[in-house]
Amino acid sequence: MAEVAQVLIDGVWRDSVADGSFESADPGKMEPTGESYPVSSKSEVIEACQAAASAAEELERHNPDGVADFLEAYADRIEARRGELVEMAHRETALPASPRLDGIELPRTTGQLRQAAAAARQRSWSLATIDTAAGIRSLYGPLGGGVAVFGPNNFPFAFNSVAGGDFAAAIAAGNPVIAKANSSHPGTTRMLAEEALEAVIACGLPKATVQLIYRTDHEVGKTLASHPAIAATGYTGSRHAGLVLKEAADRAGKPIYLELSSINPVVILPGALRERGEEIAADFQTSCLMGTGQFCTNPGVILLLKGGDTQTFINAAVTKFQEAPVGTLLGSSVLSGLQKSVDLLQQAGANLITGGAAGGGNGYSFQNTLLQVDGKQFLKDPEALQTEAFGNESLLVVADDVDQAADIVRHFEGNLTGSVYSHSGTEDEAAYEALVPILRRKVGRLLNDKMPTGVAVSAAMNHGGPYPATGHPGFTAVGIPASMLRFAMLQSYDGVRDHRLPAALRNGNPGGMWRSIDGAWTQADVQ
Amino acid sequence: MAEVAQVLIDGVWRDSVADGSFESADPGKMEPTGESYPVSSKSEVIEACQAAASAAEELERHNPDGVADFLEAYADRIEARRGELVEMAHRETALPASPRLDGIELPRTTGQLRQAAAAARQRSWSLATIDTAAGIRSLYGPLGGGVAVFGPNNFPFAFNSVAGGDFAAAIAAGNPVIAKANSSHPGTTRMLAEEALEAVIACGLPKATVQLIYRTDHEVGKTLASHPAIAATGYTGSRHAGLVLKEAADRAGKPIYLELSSINPVVILPGALRERGEEIAADFQTSCLMGTGQFCTNPGVILLLKGGDTQTFINAAVTKFQEAPVGTLLGSSVLSGLQKSVDLLQQAGANLITGGAAGGGNGYSFQNTLLQVDGKQFLKDPEALQTEAFGNESLLVVADDVDQAADIVRHFEGNLTGSVYSHSGTEDEAAYEALVPILRRKVGRLLNDKMPTGVAVSAAMNHGGPYPATGHPGFTAVGIPASMLRFAMLQSYDGVRDHRLPAALRNGNPGGMWRSIDGAWTQADVQ
Repeated sequence: MAEVAQVLIDGVWRDSVADGSFESADPGKMEPTGESYPVSSKSEVIEACQAAASAAEELERHNPDGVADFLEAYADRIEARRGELVEMAHRETALPASPRLDGIELPRTTGQLRQAAAAARQRSWSLATIDTAAGIRSLYGPLGGGVAVFGPNNFPFAFNSVAGGDFAAAIAAGNPVIAKANSSHPGTTRMLAEEALEAVIACGLPKATVQLIYRTDHEVGKTLASHPAIAATGYTGSRHAGLVLKEAADRAGKPIYLELSSINPVVILPGALRERGEEIAADFQTSCLMGTGQFCTNPGVILLLKGGDTQTFINAAVTKFQEAPVGTLLGSSVLSGLQKSVDLLQQAGANLITGGAAGGGNGYSFQNTLLQVDGKQFLKDPEALQTEAFGNESLLVVADDVDQAADIVRHFEGNLTGSVYSHSGTEDEAAYEALVPILRRKVGRLLNDKMPTGVAVSAAMNHGGPYPATGHPGFTAVGIPASMLRFAMLQSYDGVRDHRLPAALRNGNPGGMWRSIDGAWTQADVQ
Repeated sequence: MAEVAQVLIDGVWRDSVADGSFESADPGKMEPTGESYPVSSKSEVIEACQAAASAAEELERHNPDGVADFLEAYADRIEARRGELVEMAHRETALPASPRLDGIELPRTTGQLRQAAAAARQRSWSLATIDTAAGIRSLYGPLGGGVAVFGPNNFPFAFNSVAGGDFAAAIAAGNPVIAKANSSHPGTTRMLAEEALEAVIACGLPKATVQLIYRTDHEVGKTLASHPAIAATGYTGSRHAGLVLKEAADRAGKPIYLELSSINPVVILPGALRERGEEIAADFQTSCLMGTGQFCTNPGVILLLKGGDTQTFINAAVTKFQEAPVGTLLGSSVLSGLQKSVDLLQQAGANLITGGAAGGGNGYSFQNTLLQVDGKQFLKDPEALQTEAFGNESLLVVADDVDQAADIVRHFEGNLTGSVYSHSGTEDEAAYEALVPILRRKVGRLLNDKMPTGVAVSAAMNHGGPYPATGHPGFTAVGIPASMLRFAMLQSYDGVRDHRLPAALRNGNPGGMWRSIDGAWTQADVQ
């Protein structure tokens, strides 16, 4: 039996007070790595929560320059250990070391940490609002407690619970984080947390600013999300486990931000197919199979209209899916989940048009798969036919006409994204106008003539959407500074003496942050 | 048996499909008014939800000018019917017709509707964000469903479910409203809804933009807050009923904004007492007894330090409470609730120092009441000693020293406000610095040298705070435009053609709304 890895509690790497342990796996080789990680007990989680409470109180004295320094130092340290991190992440996830992990995801992660640092330092994210006549001033500030972050399996760096989007946003807003590693890449997460702790120490932040555990059972997870010292939770993962945490957090009156599941409908209108059907089929194949389809914004349902060039498009897509190499999945549970979803879709009336069985690639793999269903059948069981199949699969829905397509869109659940391909001229305009007002309110991000898989770290990004894509339609998980607002409270100051105000609300504004003074945004001092 | 009032469903006043009825009461006379109102059935509520869904879809075509026109026309109509409205509200609540209802609350209500109209028209509330390099643009837009509003008993106009803060915010953000009247002023609510419907018709909005029911049982209330056609709920009222709705809304993944209870701690430091104790006692009496103490920001707990002028302050407060006239409470349930809370506080170890029994005023009334407890006793049972006593009552907590006071503040639950009185010079500065960082994260609004009862309709107001004061610390129920963000979803547009964007996100900006373009706030066009 291998030695069990240590947890990071209150600034110290130490043996876990564990309820058990698990081994991590190498999905490319379909075998255990030989490394063992603890399942944290309730008492350990409570200890972490208490340490986070003290850190939250102390952290306010370091804000915002201390946390900005930390985020930058941490990004530097991740880059310095790049080779080792990429090797471990590749082993644990089977995602390609290059360019995916080394060239795309790691730079995205350090870029995000640096953007968060800049936002914390510059402070405009806090939407400072000053009403000079009433003598009232407000801003968004830290929550005053710990933030628990549960990361997903599919981005070992960019959404890692101890380095990714939720982590960066929570820390930059001034909160300590308790990270719960994803079980599919605990070694990567441990290495990241080692660098985080060194950066915490170097920058003189409270030692419990960053803590790490690896796994909990449902009950202990609920303890974490609802503990009095925890102010909010960020969770990205399966709908089932997310809803268990949501119930506990809701009951305790704690915000929980969930990114649960999304099938990201793509509507392709006839004019677009006539104009550039082959090109769109190529876009679709690239987007759907990228990362073996294991993206939250993977295009999982394609809505087409019967006739025209639709059959040609479908034939082209089938050929491309058959020709494309089959990637490796993140683990055995992803493979079994994908098989189960494809079976469910068929039971609900969808027809397999290519793929559908395990195998075809290295390690855990599943054939590139397309299913098809007509509009009438879709409307008979829209819930089952929106089952998320996490992986290299998509469902083509062929509607009789625009009216039926509108009815299908009306039955869509909340999603992260909705895409519409249309003719570059005006010939699809009527169909666009019929469908998009309905689609708009179902999705966080609406795209034109693009597949949804690119999620830019942009101030205007919304990586969010209505339930069940997320738990609240007003927040985004990607995009600095908007994602920071999830981990902040609105704080109003009424008649508070100038020297007692947070620096961001005083009359003077030496840093030139953006503030709304009497209804006008400005970088100036209060006059 | 009186005729039962009609409900307003889908633009029509009609007989309710009722599960029963109730009579409204005149608390000043302690007798029924003779007017009868229906308890809506589940089928009626579902019908209202379906009508709201259609209205939501249609309403987007009228945004934002149509809703702004409506809000202004409605404000005009309220003013035109002012005398009758004030008379009805006075009869139903016993709140003074003048100046409270006529001079303060009604103008506040129409002012709020007009501010909401201006915000909707000008659009800066939507925080439009444009990233020109990435081609991504975002804003906050309507939720795409109905908003259910449950109003409280204590503001028949300003927080009325069909005219108050939540209503104005939800409509101005582009959503239809299903109003659930508060049972303590159904007649006022009916009259307001009559004017709202006329304004809806005059402005050509979808007829289900405003709907009204009077009462539901818990099960039907849960149906409303969790119906697929309802996008969010605003609730102000008792903690118990609010948590019933919260559970149903949470389970359905629907945002619910709650304003539940708050005891609004006021810390009075020794230097302030030495400098102006008598003046502060007068402030305290005025604030605590205003509206017979039936404000959400009523100062319910006063934290003092032993020694110095504290006993003199307590004696002055007792005298002032005894000398002040006793107001009328909003109803028999408020009276019995107040008596119960005062009993609970005594059972938890607080001593009655004045008042404590029913009577002393017209109609339903309760003596102006003060209780006192020492810090040690408070810390023995902080939960029971934070029981909200809704009415003309307050609890004085006398701490041994600043350290014990800090411990007491650390045990405070989430509140809407926290006030600190201190010496005008520097002599209380050390105590301020010891206590306020802890208090800050417990409250939505921090005040200096002021009682909390004035809630300005300011862009910088936060009428919110951590649970259990509200259900989410990031949102305010008062203050235009911030309160509108509760009833909006974040909508991102990625590569969407300019003519298909909402007007607020197009390159041209003829209305001069504030937008953040590439990180800088501006009223200019995209260059």
